[in-house]
Amino acid sequence: MKKAILMIRCKDQKGIVAAVSEFLFSYHGNILEIDQHVDEEIGMFFMRAAWELESFALKKEEIEPIFEAKVGKMFEMEFELYFNFRKPRMAIMVSKLSHCLIDILSKFYSGQFEVEIPLVISNHPDHKKVVEAFGIPFYYLPMDKSNKDLVEERQLELLNEFRVDFVVLARYMQILSGDFIRNYPNKIINIHHSFLPAFVGAKPYHAAYERGVKIIGATAHYVTEELDAGPIIEQDIARVRHHNLPSDLVQIGQDVEKVVLSKAIKYHLERKVLAYGNKTVIFY
Amino acid sequence: MKKAILMIRCKDQKGIVAAVSEFLFSYHGNILEIDQHVDEEIGMFFMRAAWELESFALKKEEIEPIFEAKVGKMFEMEFELYFNFRKPRMAIMVSKLSHCLIDILSKFYSGQFEVEIPLVISNHPDHKKVVEAFGIPFYYLPMDKSNKDLVEERQLELLNEFRVDFVVLARYMQILSGDFIRNYPNKIINIHHSFLPAFVGAKPYHAAYERGVKIIGATAHYVTEELDAGPIIEQDIARVRHHNLPSDLVQIGQDVEKVVLSKAIKYHLERKVLAYGNKTVIFY
Amino acid sequence: MKKAILMIRCKDQKGIVAAVSEFLFSYHGNILEIDQHVDEEIGMFFMRAAWELESFALKKEEIEPIFEAKVGKMFEMEFELYFNFRKPRMAIMVSKLSHCLIDILSKFYSGQFEVEIPLVISNHPDHKKVVEAFGIPFYYLPMDKSNKDLVEERQLELLNEFRVDFVVLARYMQILSGDFIRNYPNKIINIHHSFLPAFVGAKPYHAAYERGVKIIGATAHYVTEELDAGPIIEQDIARVRHHNLPSDLVQIGQDVEKVVLSKAIKYHLERKVLAYGNKTVIFY
Amino acid sequence: MKKAILMIRCKDQKGIVAAVSEFLFSYHGNILEIDQHVDEEIGMFFMRAAWELESFALKKEEIEPIFEAKVGKMFEMEFELYFNFRKPRMAIMVSKLSHCLIDILSKFYSGQFEVEIPLVISNHPDHKKVVEAFGIPFYYLPMDKSNKDLVEERQLELLNEFRVDFVVLARYMQILSGDFIRNYPNKIINIHHSFLPAFVGAKPYHAAYERGVKIIGATAHYVTEELDAGPIIEQDIARVRHHNLPSDLVQIGQDVEKVVLSKAIKYHLERKVLAYGNKTVIFY
Repeated sequence: MKKAILMIRCKDQKGIVAAVSEFLFSYHGNILEIDQHVDEEIGMFFMRAAWELESFALKKEEIEPIFEAKVGKMFEMEFELYFNFRKPRMAIMVSKLSHCLIDILSKFYSGQFEVEIPLVISNHPDHKKVVEAFGIPFYYLPMDKSNKDLVEERQLELLNEFRVDFVVLARYMQILSGDFIRNYPNKIINIHHSFLPAFVGAKPYHAAYERGVKIIGATAHYVTEELDAGPIIEQDIARVRHHNLPSDLVQIGQDVEKVVLSKAIKYHLERKVLAYGNKTVIFY
Repeated sequence: MKKAILMIRCKDQKGIVAAVSEFLFSYHGNILEIDQHVDEEIGMFFMRAAWELESFALKKEEIEPIFEAKVGKMFEMEFELYFNFRKPRMAIMVSKLSHCLIDILSKFYSGQFEVEIPLVISNHPDHKKVVEAFGIPFYYLPMDKSNKDLVEERQLELLNEFRVDFVVLARYMQILSGDFIRNYPNKIINIHHSFLPAFVGAKPYHAAYERGVKIIGATAHYVTEELDAGPIIEQDIARVRHHNLPSDLVQIGQDVEKVVLSKAIKYHLERKVLAYGNKTVIFY
Repeated sequence: MKKAILMIRCKDQKGIVAAVSEFLFSYHGNILEIDQHVDEEIGMFFMRAAWELESFALKKEEIEPIFEAKVGKMFEMEFELYFNFRKPRMAIMVSKLSHCLIDILSKFYSGQFEVEIPLVISNHPDHKKVVEAFGIPFYYLPMDKSNKDLVEERQLELLNEFRVDFVVLARYMQILSGDFIRNYPNKIINIHHSFLPAFVGAKPYHAAYERGVKIIGATAHYVTEELDAGPIIEQDIARVRHHNLPSDLVQIGQDVEKVVLSKAIKYHLERKVLAYGNKTVIFY
Repeated sequence: MKKAILMIRCKDQKGIVAAVSEFLFSYHGNILEIDQHVDEEIGMFFMRAAWELESFALKKEEIEPIFEAKVGKMFEMEFELYFNFRKPRMAIMVSKLSHCLIDILSKFYSGQFEVEIPLVISNHPDHKKVVEAFGIPFYYLPMDKSNKDLVEERQLELLNEFRVDFVVLARYMQILSGDFIRNYPNKIINIHHSFLPAFVGAKPYHAAYERGVKIIGATAHYVTEELDAGPIIEQDIARVRHHNLPSDLVQIGQDVEKVVLSKAIKYHLERKVLAYGNKTVIFY
């Protein structure tokens, strides 16, 4: 079923739901999903509406300008319009650990992700064969301290060339520069291997072991310039016991990481995430 | 904040969301929450809307007839209107096990439940003192095979006399008659100590032990005439190990039971549950 | 069934399990449970053994000296001997929030905790009636900045007078002095309302809300002089959504807090916890 | 570190732990892990002991006969001896759904599973390319009603030829014959896509949807001749909501299935599972 999805944010005001739903109804749109959220602390309104296109009286190209003219302008809305038949284009960046990468490829392979994956970029050559077995081009761009700027430039060129919509850091162990991040605001999803804000930074499983915690976790978040501080999309945990060594935590944690990352990607793909400040609204 | 809550069900049709939100907006209602669900299999539409009353142009008494005239009729809606300042009246029925009872009393005591509890009814005298310590009348109605009909009659009289809106079976170990149940359709919440539909009926923890399961669970559901088959409101589980005896499962399970039951009560109190057939829509 | 429980810690060496089990067997002890753990990083060995007393050839009073002479000395063990028929004596300290207190009382009332509760101490008078309904003396000791030392002195006197073995801080909102803590090393159990080490200190639910986390948690730990840094006994989490306000997190979190605290108490009561450094071994 | 693992079952008697640990100590074995379990209902004793081989005074080949002579005979033990440096040989059988297969391959690829995978057998040709990308031979044996016996014969030949120790059914959608199963008692691990014993048989997600459950699950178990009734190794669940269609449950459930199956494989590989009757002891 062809559908359109509208993501809206604006100052909280009366009548927004009525205006949006009236707009959709007036053009014979069949609303499939409608969700809204008000953050009263900051007085902001967020909304997501999805409707069937088949019976809709406006053409795809008309929706945005007419909605802006009839509704958006009045409420000073920021809004984005998506169509479920235009697959987003996702790049994967990865280093040595393959569990998140392969989980994404597996879901892509079985058709769970409505996405195109034009390329995988890695600073290690290791997973070339596996990635290519899934029919996806693999770019090996070795990186060290001396060439970081140049490599980032080349990465950005590739993302540009392949018209990438968003980037997934599937355990990519390099810190992206502010320049890089500013190219993809709330469009770079990272998986951090702790339940943030605990254990920010490097080696969280070792830190968890040292602290003697009984649960470990993983956090998928949009990347911002402050390390591990971006808007959280999804988190989950696993139980550990006193006899689990850091190497056990690494293994136990990997299943959490990949599932959490996949859920975050899924929410992003289905246009269910609205990020603002260091928070997200997830309409699921 | 005083608010009104509208729960709607009708055949799925275009324009319902627009009509409802337009109605609310036309009387200056500030929508706080709006949720909808379509069950496409059966072609049914479900909706929940909550709005602030302060600025609303209709008086409490006017809302229902005017909504019916302007919106309800057109879409052949069944709908219910609630106000958050009218506390529902809840009766608790309990037998010998006290954990669910005391958990409810604890939440009532600390103000978590917006509810009135006019009475507790038990077929055992055991918990009279504890219940009364929380300021709630306790009715001991002993029951055996010979007097079941009479006792149920007396129970219904009490529920009627105390103008009870809904009933919670907090581990009440008698099976209610069809007559009793038909008095409170989707208004009797039971907690069953298994993750239904596994282990229907008596002694589910013993059955779970015999089967060698690694998780046990609990299910809160509305009571219907078919045993343990009513619409499920909430479920959860706990992990168990090979060394856990049935008596351990009973203890481990009690924490799950009481938390699941409390969540179901909370959803019911906040008018977030729409039951239909043997399913529930939970707008949380 | 009467049983003895031996908790051992010593340097890791060969032959410990053999020596202990051989000792028990030589006096006709029927081993019910045996667990051991080696922390290889620090070269420490931990063990728990439980056995039936009925057929055991040593009298209760003989076990400790004879075990010390025959086994303990050889391996330079620290060990503790418990009997399951000598109920530990637990004091509860609480402030205004009642959910953990009542959950403990509920489990005590239903016989889930093999414990005696000689008293509850509070710096607020609020819960006197409820506590006394469960048959437990309630001591109200008001506290402010001016009298903190004196009140702690009085608290310690009471704990002493009532021969209290360990203390549970059931949302007791005062920070204990180092002096107080040193009287009960690894014998004061606190519940902190976050998944430590995230959100140490005051108002963790508000901090969690500000950070936009998708899970909140609770941590039961032994109290040490460093705030919220003692050995963790148990942790768990609950999921939250973007629309949950800090006041919602407080409510959702309370069910986690009480269940986590109860589990920690249970482990402690069943002599399943060995604390060392800032870690615990939990033999369950 | 080279280690030996002993798995024991026998009638419950006094002195077993002492005899086993004394045996290990007498040959200078350093015990790494020791666990035991008594099923009092049936009077059976289960034990697992792991020890370092380096310092052990017996040669690999001597351990079994000498243990039998000195300990096993006396207690009429059934026991099995494993060495962690002899990797078990695991075959995977799969049909059309690839998520469990690829998750296993991914863990194999990253070195998480200490196993050899000599072959994958499928009744569909679909996943040949992916399997071979991981360096594993793929056998496509098409099956229909007319040739089931012959194909099973060929499958058994292959398992035999490749000296397979145990078989994983990674969503293999054919029911194995009793003959096949009797060749691998407690050595065939299946993943069933429900929390057994709920929703035995075909289409459990559709049945879960029809029943309106709030949690779905997955169960890894050893295959016995009675469908979905074998000893459960591991289970887990995921939450679902009213708007999730059967096709959503399938997707949500797949992450649970693969994680549960992987854990079961891991327990099996690390020799932590003792199956008896329709139960398992899991020493983790």
